[in-house]
Amino acid sequence: MNERILQILLDHQDQFISGEQLSSRLNCSRTAIWKHIRHLRKQGYEFEAVPRLGYRLVKVPDKLDEEQLAKLLKTEVMGRRVHMYETVESTQTAAREWFSKGEGEGTLILAEQQTAGRGRLGRKWHSPAGKGLWMSLILTPRISLHFAPQLTLLTAVALCRTIHRMSGVPIGIKWPNDLLINGKKVSGILLESHAEDDRLQVVVAGVGISVNMGETDFPEELKDIATSLLLETGKTANREELLAEFLYEFEQLYQLYHERGFAPIRALWEALSISIGRLIRIQTHNGWVSGKAEAVDEMGALVIVQEDGSKTKLYAGDISVI
Amino acid sequence: MNERILQILLDHQDQFISGEQLSSRLNCSRTAIWKHIRHLRKQGYEFEAVPRLGYRLVKVPDKLDEEQLAKLLKTEVMGRRVHMYETVESTQTAAREWFSKGEGEGTLILAEQQTAGRGRLGRKWHSPAGKGLWMSLILTPRISLHFAPQLTLLTAVALCRTIHRMSGVPIGIKWPNDLLINGKKVSGILLESHAEDDRLQVVVAGVGISVNMGETDFPEELKDIATSLLLETGKTANREELLAEFLYEFEQLYQLYHERGFAPIRALWEALSISIGRLIRIQTHNGWVSGKAEAVDEMGALVIVQEDGSKTKLYAGDISVI
Repeated sequence: MNERILQILLDHQDQFISGEQLSSRLNCSRTAIWKHIRHLRKQGYEFEAVPRLGYRLVKVPDKLDEEQLAKLLKTEVMGRRVHMYETVESTQTAAREWFSKGEGEGTLILAEQQTAGRGRLGRKWHSPAGKGLWMSLILTPRISLHFAPQLTLLTAVALCRTIHRMSGVPIGIKWPNDLLINGKKVSGILLESHAEDDRLQVVVAGVGISVNMGETDFPEELKDIATSLLLETGKTANREELLAEFLYEFEQLYQLYHERGFAPIRALWEALSISIGRLIRIQTHNGWVSGKAEAVDEMGALVIVQEDGSKTKLYAGDISVI
Repeated sequence: MNERILQILLDHQDQFISGEQLSSRLNCSRTAIWKHIRHLRKQGYEFEAVPRLGYRLVKVPDKLDEEQLAKLLKTEVMGRRVHMYETVESTQTAAREWFSKGEGEGTLILAEQQTAGRGRLGRKWHSPAGKGLWMSLILTPRISLHFAPQLTLLTAVALCRTIHRMSGVPIGIKWPNDLLINGKKVSGILLESHAEDDRLQVVVAGVGISVNMGETDFPEELKDIATSLLLETGKTANREELLAEFLYEFEQLYQLYHERGFAPIRALWEALSISIGRLIRIQTHNGWVSGKAEAVDEMGALVIVQEDGSKTKLYAGDISVI
């Protein structure tokens, strides 16, 4: 009922609809209408209510809508169970706790805002409310722990293809898993895996996408290196739609991976990569490594051809500073 | 002072020592003696106290003594910080929590008793009070997650060498990390690793040793497959001593591993292994695998030569049932 009222008011934002009209169209009492409006107000919708004129929708809250997401979702498993938080320390930590409570593969942990969002190498991940998608997906792939890094690349491919398909922007993957638009980072991916001896127990895929952040939403130190879909496309993106598309793309690739192995995923990654063919210079625990990025191997390591022609493999774990 | 009183009473368990004698030998008041005795009683020591005769030590509690352990410890790092529990659900879980609170490499979590001890493949680990060593050691090796399984073998080697040196029993390692004496399991090792992409964050090495369990201490279903050092040697082992020796051996091998890599560890493992050279049959997710165990490879996988001469690598993670 809330939705039907909402729909009517959304369709007539330029005029007032009286309580009487709503009540007769929806076949319920005026009091019931009033109660639903009050409920919607609590959810963050703002209405102008004028006696004898009626109601007019003034503002729609930009809050993640679980029902909306469920409607848009085309997946079988991914995102079918959702735990949503207004605010949480970190969706990664929450996901791990949910897993130990029995939640399984495909369970999605979402947050409007993170107070201690985690990035790679122990850095913070800036997660302001209402502007992005901060999430963690529980996965239980039946693979040896050696292959967990392949899933990091898979996640990057899924997200890159989704954003490109939905917005058309020139987005590419900078090794190992940063998505860049015009040289600036629009998302971060962090896969945390937990293994028993060499058996993978769970992989928690953390994804952060800067969807609708404006210039003023970025702290000073990020202004030159980060961007958002809003800043790059000029348009506000519908977060539930983006999320549903991403989960569907992810599930497709995940199934492909289980059926055909890493080869097709690797091929897709290399096609989307902006690192391959470029000269790169990365700081590792053992000093600087530089050369031309040639390919990515079975384990997701970057193969670099150094000046003297020798090849080196760089693992994501080697990087000490990006 | 508690110790000195204890020592005197331990040396004279067949007679009573009066409060006066204790007081004069140790140069402190009778009241002080009485307070120390009371303190020792709280720790579980039992005394017979007869007016005008004095005290006689009747029973020594078999409780892990942190101070005693600290005295015996010869390590630089391993076991230098200890968190001991009377009873805990699982030392593995506790260790993980301590790590997230900031504890680092070498921190040891010990428990007299576990209520939900974890074995491999989701099984329970039987951990009754006072009879064994149930512990978890926090490690932060700077290695790629691919090499974590090597540490499982290292732990098995350290424990095997320790028990052999201290007791002389014929103990060997059954792949991947069970220690057997005369065909029965005397300890379990479980390494849980947590990685970020391919970077290892922490490895929690869980070790359970059935030290002083008697026949009646094993539940029915374990009687044919498990044993203890007590049952195999006929002697009660000093748990603090065993623990201190193990931690020292472990630290030595861990340092060797960091300096020389896995090769020397692998050589030691193969020398102690009872699997190598034997015909084995193991149930995996893909059915039974049988053949002759030939060697263990760089990743800790067991190389098996099947009937037709072909070689297969078996990972600990492949096993579905042991």
